[in-house]
Amino acid sequence: MSHPLRAPHDAFGAFVPGAPVHATGAAFGPLLGRGFAAKDLFDVAGLVTGCGNPDWAASHPPAVAHADAVQGLLDAGASLVGRTITDEISLGLLGRNQFHGTPINPRAPERLPGGSSSGSAAAVAGGLADLALGTDSGGSVRVPSSFCGLFGMRPSHGRISVRGLMTQSPSFDTVGLFARDPAVLQTAYDLLLDDKPVGGTVDGVLIAWDAFAISDEAVQEALAPALLTLRARLPAEEITLSAEGLPRWAERQRRLQQAEFGRTFRDWIDAFNPRFSFEVGRSLALAALVAEEDLSDEHAFRAEVRAEITGRLAGRRLLCLPTTPILPPARGIPLSAMAEAGRRITELTSVAGLTGLPQISLPLGQTPEGIPVGLSLIGWPGADEVLLRMARELAA
Amino acid sequence: MSHPLRAPHDAFGAFVPGAPVHATGAAFGPLLGRGFAAKDLFDVAGLVTGCGNPDWAASHPPAVAHADAVQGLLDAGASLVGRTITDEISLGLLGRNQFHGTPINPRAPERLPGGSSSGSAAAVAGGLADLALGTDSGGSVRVPSSFCGLFGMRPSHGRISVRGLMTQSPSFDTVGLFARDPAVLQTAYDLLLDDKPVGGTVDGVLIAWDAFAISDEAVQEALAPALLTLRARLPAEEITLSAEGLPRWAERQRRLQQAEFGRTFRDWIDAFNPRFSFEVGRSLALAALVAEEDLSDEHAFRAEVRAEITGRLAGRRLLCLPTTPILPPARGIPLSAMAEAGRRITELTSVAGLTGLPQISLPLGQTPEGIPVGLSLIGWPGADEVLLRMARELAA
Repeated sequence: MSHPLRAPHDAFGAFVPGAPVHATGAAFGPLLGRGFAAKDLFDVAGLVTGCGNPDWAASHPPAVAHADAVQGLLDAGASLVGRTITDEISLGLLGRNQFHGTPINPRAPERLPGGSSSGSAAAVAGGLADLALGTDSGGSVRVPSSFCGLFGMRPSHGRISVRGLMTQSPSFDTVGLFARDPAVLQTAYDLLLDDKPVGGTVDGVLIAWDAFAISDEAVQEALAPALLTLRARLPAEEITLSAEGLPRWAERQRRLQQAEFGRTFRDWIDAFNPRFSFEVGRSLALAALVAEEDLSDEHAFRAEVRAEITGRLAGRRLLCLPTTPILPPARGIPLSAMAEAGRRITELTSVAGLTGLPQISLPLGQTPEGIPVGLSLIGWPGADEVLLRMARELAA
Repeated sequence: MSHPLRAPHDAFGAFVPGAPVHATGAAFGPLLGRGFAAKDLFDVAGLVTGCGNPDWAASHPPAVAHADAVQGLLDAGASLVGRTITDEISLGLLGRNQFHGTPINPRAPERLPGGSSSGSAAAVAGGLADLALGTDSGGSVRVPSSFCGLFGMRPSHGRISVRGLMTQSPSFDTVGLFARDPAVLQTAYDLLLDDKPVGGTVDGVLIAWDAFAISDEAVQEALAPALLTLRARLPAEEITLSAEGLPRWAERQRRLQQAEFGRTFRDWIDAFNPRFSFEVGRSLALAALVAEEDLSDEHAFRAEVRAEITGRLAGRRLLCLPTTPILPPARGIPLSAMAEAGRRITELTSVAGLTGLPQISLPLGQTPEGIPVGLSLIGWPGADEVLLRMARELAA
């Protein structure tokens, strides 16, 4: 498949092909001199937000204002250096885009970068930007953070404004950030998070053994040293996260999210009959079969699991699990293998997805061949700042 | 949505954008001096058969030989003047193509041309070719014949070689032709049909009143004069074609065809994750949900209905019905309306589809505004030549 030419400075194919995008940040601020990239889901004033699909771009007008998150970083002195490739309309966890090309994973060039915030992760991992904005509804910041060896966080649902951002699934959508340096990540989040932090002193960590048990051996082995470090720092307790099995959690996340994005995109699809890769078209076709009124079990489960995990964390414990149960898959795997990889990844990303809890992925593991593997910490509602502090401590 | 530039001589956007295709026919033959167009599903030696989808084109090698049907027309002295746009991988009945553009219906420019052999019909109706090759699995020659005011036939299943042709649904696929002049159609079919005609003297026509009853009033009114002519020529009898209702026939056709094209395209889709319009991606996604082993009722029904209709025709009667129950829909209707139009059309096209019987669409009707409406005759197995003769008589 041929793709539009990539910009000459863009060695990792991270940026949306076409005209370069640049906006200079404020003359003063805590992010002065930093360059950031923004996923092609965030509005940039005067430009069409393409959302990774040319028919979306062709059927939407230019944005009249910057997205709140873009404006926030500009106001803090950071400059926007590029707009990054996303899986089409953010539906995907592996980072493939059949229209704009699939960004290179700078840490594992033969493997996929993860998605849907694929270009944001590639830009930061490849040194093209100091930090990057992404979105995470079902895992779209956490997965590429793990695959590309970055610090990346999905914040508590609702703590960062989604104004000026393409809606996917409102009850799941969050604004996330990637960085190589956890201090930069912390500074940027401090600017974007609302003023309702829920602090606390972490006095223990719950190791979700079932989440480790369903992960590939290579993932378990790569994370073993980081787990030892964590245990040396904090009292640890092994727990079973899901009595019914994480695959059932993933299924509930999938159905709830399908119902939401099915509704989000329905009228646009009906009006324009847009082109999608089969992977994305299939997701949307299957989403249209999910009836809102059949989801009362899923909604009840979601409320239950949120209450239960929040209770277990009790404002003083963190939950630890692998970010993904698999290594980044090889580029060019068949669609059936992509679907299977997506199913498995969702078994772990559904924990924060269903509960709305904040989750940070830490680049603390790697295989003997140097393939990055992320370790994740999940906090109680509003514990975003706690997670960011913990990231700096563990990285030190 | 933007589409590649159309060739300057191609006023109706009938031909596949890109390099023009030409092959000169033999120096002698019954079609000497005639120009024909071929749907982009037929192999032309040395070129990639694009099948209406750029990712199909990018993932297939050039053809080594002409398709049998192309070679047959060239040998008879006709020259290939162009390769015509098709609905993606022939899945569609309305003629929309989001990659190559939707051909203009020369007889009703604000309305769709019908598909999937859209460009072939547009080329002939617009005078760019004397005849054109199409394919018909679920209605892809009959529908554009009706919408563009042409003579067009779906032959008895199996009587024209499909070698060198993209496979869609093997038990449904046929090679069809369009012409403005029924004599040209007859000459071309004489060359392509196998030597197993089943002749006979037509001594009556069965009017499928249920097929007329489910058609829009505009269709019924447009066909009334042609029906009078037919009744004046042949003893007519009104019959009910389907006791259970034609919508059930359409459903069975759809499921059987889905199972076949699902199998046809499965491995290619898995390997390449190709791009499709949502309409086509959805068809393929839903096709993957149809399990072959659940279709025993459909297979039994198919055998029954074929035996029953063949028995009613008894080698001496023809069946008469509207080609489609609707007028050509407006260009740019929403996807939901396209799906509904496709469902209704299949209620009539499923008769020949399920039975494999030959069907000719005759441009004998039009609305007061001049929109073409086709009247169809279905013959017994092998009665193709009888239908072609009848077409000439009725047109005279």
